[in-house]
Amino acid sequence: MKINDIPYRSIWVEEGEVRIIDQRWLPHEFRIVSLAERGEFATAIRDMWVRGAPLIGATAAWGVAVQMAADPSDASLAETWEVLHATRPTAINLRWALDEMRRVLAPLPPAERAAAAAARAAAICDEDVEINRRIGVAGLEVIRGIAARKAGPVNILTHCNAGWLATVDWGTATSPIYHAIEAGIGVHVFVDETRPRNQGALLTAWEMASHGVSHELIVDNAGGHLMQHGEVDLVIVGTDRTTANGDVCNKIGTYLKALAAKANGVPFYVALPSPTIDWTVRDGLAEIPIEERSGAEVTHVQGKDGSGRVISVQISPDGTPARNPAFDVTPASLVTGLITERGVCAAEPGAMRAMFPEAGV
Amino acid sequence: MKINDIPYRSIWVEEGEVRIIDQRWLPHEFRIVSLAERGEFATAIRDMWVRGAPLIGATAAWGVAVQMAADPSDASLAETWEVLHATRPTAINLRWALDEMRRVLAPLPPAERAAAAAARAAAICDEDVEINRRIGVAGLEVIRGIAARKAGPVNILTHCNAGWLATVDWGTATSPIYHAIEAGIGVHVFVDETRPRNQGALLTAWEMASHGVSHELIVDNAGGHLMQHGEVDLVIVGTDRTTANGDVCNKIGTYLKALAAKANGVPFYVALPSPTIDWTVRDGLAEIPIEERSGAEVTHVQGKDGSGRVISVQISPDGTPARNPAFDVTPASLVTGLITERGVCAAEPGAMRAMFPEAGV
Repeated sequence: MKINDIPYRSIWVEEGEVRIIDQRWLPHEFRIVSLAERGEFATAIRDMWVRGAPLIGATAAWGVAVQMAADPSDASLAETWEVLHATRPTAINLRWALDEMRRVLAPLPPAERAAAAAARAAAICDEDVEINRRIGVAGLEVIRGIAARKAGPVNILTHCNAGWLATVDWGTATSPIYHAIEAGIGVHVFVDETRPRNQGALLTAWEMASHGVSHELIVDNAGGHLMQHGEVDLVIVGTDRTTANGDVCNKIGTYLKALAAKANGVPFYVALPSPTIDWTVRDGLAEIPIEERSGAEVTHVQGKDGSGRVISVQISPDGTPARNPAFDVTPASLVTGLITERGVCAAEPGAMRAMFPEAGV
Repeated sequence: MKINDIPYRSIWVEEGEVRIIDQRWLPHEFRIVSLAERGEFATAIRDMWVRGAPLIGATAAWGVAVQMAADPSDASLAETWEVLHATRPTAINLRWALDEMRRVLAPLPPAERAAAAAARAAAICDEDVEINRRIGVAGLEVIRGIAARKAGPVNILTHCNAGWLATVDWGTATSPIYHAIEAGIGVHVFVDETRPRNQGALLTAWEMASHGVSHELIVDNAGGHLMQHGEVDLVIVGTDRTTANGDVCNKIGTYLKALAAKANGVPFYVALPSPTIDWTVRDGLAEIPIEERSGAEVTHVQGKDGSGRVISVQISPDGTPARNPAFDVTPASLVTGLITERGVCAAEPGAMRAMFPEAGV
């Protein structure tokens, strides 16, 4: 999407180099870096210069391609899979991209691998862009329907960052928003700051400002109040994992917004590429283990100080113990619909299987 | 309550001086200051060295008493009312305390005013302690009932700081917790950090640690998840204003916790001194105007940096617009009960009037 009127992707090739936005510095600094060799790709993934499942996969694919240009041997291919997989071993999309690159490259003679790898890496990026574009087209109809029934902008609340920075372009939850802008529909976005890691304040607010989308940052506590007073027309969030029953695992706090949406008659949609549906899991609450992260994320907050340095400050007494569950599960009964690359469907097993019949387990 | 095993109040007289805890520095520094003349009391209230309605009232009362010792004239009494009232002109409790002091002192000959003022200021403090003690005794029975039905500690979630630091002692929402500790009942407190001003992280966490209460700090997003998994037995919060129908206006985000409590069968109680019931208001959502505060509270966070200095850091892009509603209204239908100084009653007009028949408007 746009940064100061210039269209960007989160990873791209320019002057023969693979380039990314080093997201660690956002929103306080916008730094583009070129990744020239495998070790740099590994660092970028491991140290979270890039984040978001689709972007991590795309970055790994380009890491393989760059290495194949340097050394297309079998040993190099095998080692590259290992080196890049080890950067974030629990990232499903990372493993998928590495497997896919190996599947395409392994049968080829080494001399053909560099070109094939670059082609497949570019295609993986384009496929991600296309899936997110389709999510946006589907979600646009939801926004259009609301716009037709009211005066003024459609007020959309979102949580965390399911934006283009987490994908190659468009994002998931943000894609309908960007499509509405392109369609000339007025939108205003309430951006949940999304404690403890503040992805909303850091990244979503930056995306909205950079693309010129009307928005306001709010604390995670405020959304319920705004919904009570009719100030939110629609909630759209992303998801890390959705079950076959339509239960939605997403960033901690999503569930509270879903409860408030239900209580106030506000439609609550989840935007997702269908590969994030886990057809093997039914009851999200009972079956999905929730990662507990370091309490330091709760007791400390990062931000820019008066001199422009990004530092960490402690907000609680020395030694305060903290609990830090990173995700929660929103039951399907609170979800108005799933916005997928094939269209919108109810968060309900029958509707989901009708839209994805090939998933039939 | 206790700080390192020593019992404190939030305002007290020692060695002939009125002393307070300068709460601006909590939790990073524990500073006791003596207030020797009227101007210092005015500064302490205006600049929020003390906060919380009951403590503001008590501080004003002592401010009048100190001034009466210096100059008990009619002019001095009138001017003191004005000077102290101007510090936070919208604080109801401040005005009540000043009116009460004037009511007692005005009819007396000046020579008798100093002693009478000190006596009335001390009594105002003792009355606040007593009302909060009674809230704790009533709330203790709620906790005792839960403890009797389960093994292990009673897990209590609280939002913001309705603790002894906001009153003269005991606090409101915290009083049942401190009473449970005294009664030997195991409790564990989940402390909502309470963005944007982080009163939970700053003050409630400090109170719990100082008194030796088992606790964990959580982000405001986490409570729903904990309730879904049976980790919260009880929610107790305070209130700024409760309507005759039992609607509860409290710090922003309270409503989201009430929704989650209802959805998960967790009892949701509100602890309050009965003067915070506004019998003239029925529908809290429609009738209570909600203060919108500066967006800078959302875009910036205060904390202690690596060198021990308390500074402010910016968590969002430069120029990010923010909305900052400071309170929300929890409908009575989500409230299990009101814990008052006369006992626990349903958040329902009939029950409330039965407990406070003299309120009958």
